Amino acid sequence: MTDLRQNILTGDWVVIASRRALRPESFSTGTPKPTDERLSTCPFCMGNEDQTPPEVFAVRPENGLNDTKGWKVRVVPNKFPAFLDKKELNEPEESGIYTSLPAYGHHEVIIHGPNHNETVADMDTQDLALVLNVYQQRLAALSADPKTVSAIIIINQGREAGASIEHPHSQLFTLPMIAPRQQRELEQIKRFKSEEDDCPLCAMLKYEQAFKERVIAENDYFLAFCPFASAAPFEVNIVPKKHQQDFHKAGKEEIDALAKIFKFTFGRLGERLKDPPYNTFLHTRPFQTDDDYHWHFVIMPKTSIMAGFEFGTGMMINIVGPEASAKFLREP
Amino acid sequence: MTDLRQNILTGDWVVIASRRALRPESFSTGTPKPTDERLSTCPFCMGNEDQTPPEVFAVRPENGLNDTKGWKVRVVPNKFPAFLDKKELNEPEESGIYTSLPAYGHHEVIIHGPNHNETVADMDTQDLALVLNVYQQRLAALSADPKTVSAIIIINQGREAGASIEHPHSQLFTLPMIAPRQQRELEQIKRFKSEEDDCPLCAMLKYEQAFKERVIAENDYFLAFCPFASAAPFEVNIVPKKHQQDFHKAGKEEIDALAKIFKFTFGRLGERLKDPPYNTFLHTRPFQTDDDYHWHFVIMPKTSIMAGFEFGTGMMINIVGPEASAKFLREP
Repeated sequence: MTDLRQNILTGDWVVIASRRALRPESFSTGTPKPTDERLSTCPFCMGNEDQTPPEVFAVRPENGLNDTKGWKVRVVPNKFPAFLDKKELNEPEESGIYTSLPAYGHHEVIIHGPNHNETVADMDTQDLALVLNVYQQRLAALSADPKTVSAIIIINQGREAGASIEHPHSQLFTLPMIAPRQQRELEQIKRFKSEEDDCPLCAMLKYEQAFKERVIAENDYFLAFCPFASAAPFEVNIVPKKHQQDFHKAGKEEIDALAKIFKFTFGRLGERLKDPPYNTFLHTRPFQTDDDYHWHFVIMPKTSIMAGFEFGTGMMINIVGPEASAKFLREP
Repeated sequence: MTDLRQNILTGDWVVIASRRALRPESFSTGTPKPTDERLSTCPFCMGNEDQTPPEVFAVRPENGLNDTKGWKVRVVPNKFPAFLDKKELNEPEESGIYTSLPAYGHHEVIIHGPNHNETVADMDTQDLALVLNVYQQRLAALSADPKTVSAIIIINQGREAGASIEHPHSQLFTLPMIAPRQQRELEQIKRFKSEEDDCPLCAMLKYEQAFKERVIAENDYFLAFCPFASAAPFEVNIVPKKHQQDFHKAGKEEIDALAKIFKFTFGRLGERLKDPPYNTFLHTRPFQTDDDYHWHFVIMPKTSIMAGFEFGTGMMINIVGPEASAKFLREP
């Protein structure tokens, strides 16, 4: 079976080229997980606070001092930032026919916890809820800067997925613009609403709940499913059932429910694919806009390489259909 | 130095986040190249013609039989095609709110030559010109199919760049649509022409020839340069100086000049980065259109991983600016 499918949120096309002979088990990576809870050489381990830039935020007991032990979640600037929050940022020196912008923004690292070997799948839901709440607090704080136009939070888990530091962490970027993918989403949402009188993510939720074959998990507030136009084997989207613009405005009950569906989904990926490397990102509404949006998480296990076709066309080739992916992830 | 740059051909944005401490030498990969000229287990080696699907085209001596030894370039269908040229292609079974298309198309493998260990950088220019001429012949033949809307030719060199078979080869895909990246290019060209009264690639050629800092090589017909908005360290674009729509209509003199600048460029990449894995693609005008275009090659050495930020934003982070990349590639 091979067909071209369009993502109704982004407008992107993917090639679903399922190979019958391929068993989902063949994607198991079995990367050995670290067994050490602490490493003297890891800048994110408890006790090594002096190996990072000074923290900008932390969850720690009252009266605990900055950059000392005892924290539960810790936020530090990235040592090699892709964006810089400097007012004196140089305007690019040349332009001519070209267009450029100063890369103004923030690039923070959110260390999930003190344990070196505790991935999202291993954390208990209370600790996960704490991390998600730190996401909210940082987004709320950084959105106050009028030069901050949008933000994205990502998790790269595993070296093959681009993690240069093993200790589980997220990265928060703020941008001086709306990223191209999100710009396309905002335009698609506008178009879909005018044509179908609905938000594409709300429409997807209804469709997937009824169709069932691509659903991984569901609770009162969230649906986790492999999207129709999955760009990679075992891609999972986690979407709030309520049409909600801004992640940082979600309530405590929702964050607790999100922590639970996170725990379940990352747990299933870990069990079924043997702790695969993965990329995860949070899309939330750009700050300086009233445009309609619906925040969501995308999880992409790293099972394939971007190569000439993908770069040259802007289309991904996915060799495991989302129906087979979801079935495999649901099975015990 | 960090800034955001827009590619005036695609409209894509990249983050140029040069790290001063990084020396270009650190990108040398030093992947050992195979030393064998023939492998009994390689389906693309001379003598193993029965290990591929029957050939669709070959350059071989007169009276040579199909699927026998003696060829110089050989074209076979891909054993695991992403696109299928079957008239009876199933219409996708479900759609509802979703959009999909049958993945009608061709997916061919162009084996560059009989030698297992001869990469593009190693080939002599006459043999390279032969391969480029086979590109032209296959594009001309496949464009006759009215269901073929566009085509792309790629080279993935090295396992890290997605090559599953080591023996040097290209892949030709035809698509039943215009790929999203190329669609954006066609729209950008239209916009740029109406605003600047020029083709963006023609404007780039003039600018880069005058600016010089990003140029790698030049001959009568072509310019090879690291583009202003390079999406990866050491990205090189090779662009014909003449505003030419269709690659398969380029003349013999141009193909010979292209083979020479290929040899030089891939040679420099191989020497300076120690035979890096890379992705290369050819963009030529879609077949069923009169829209204006300017064909070109893009070469992207594989030095980094697409991760959460890149997937979530649609922007690449490039940690070596094109000016430094070009300087490094020019130096002896």
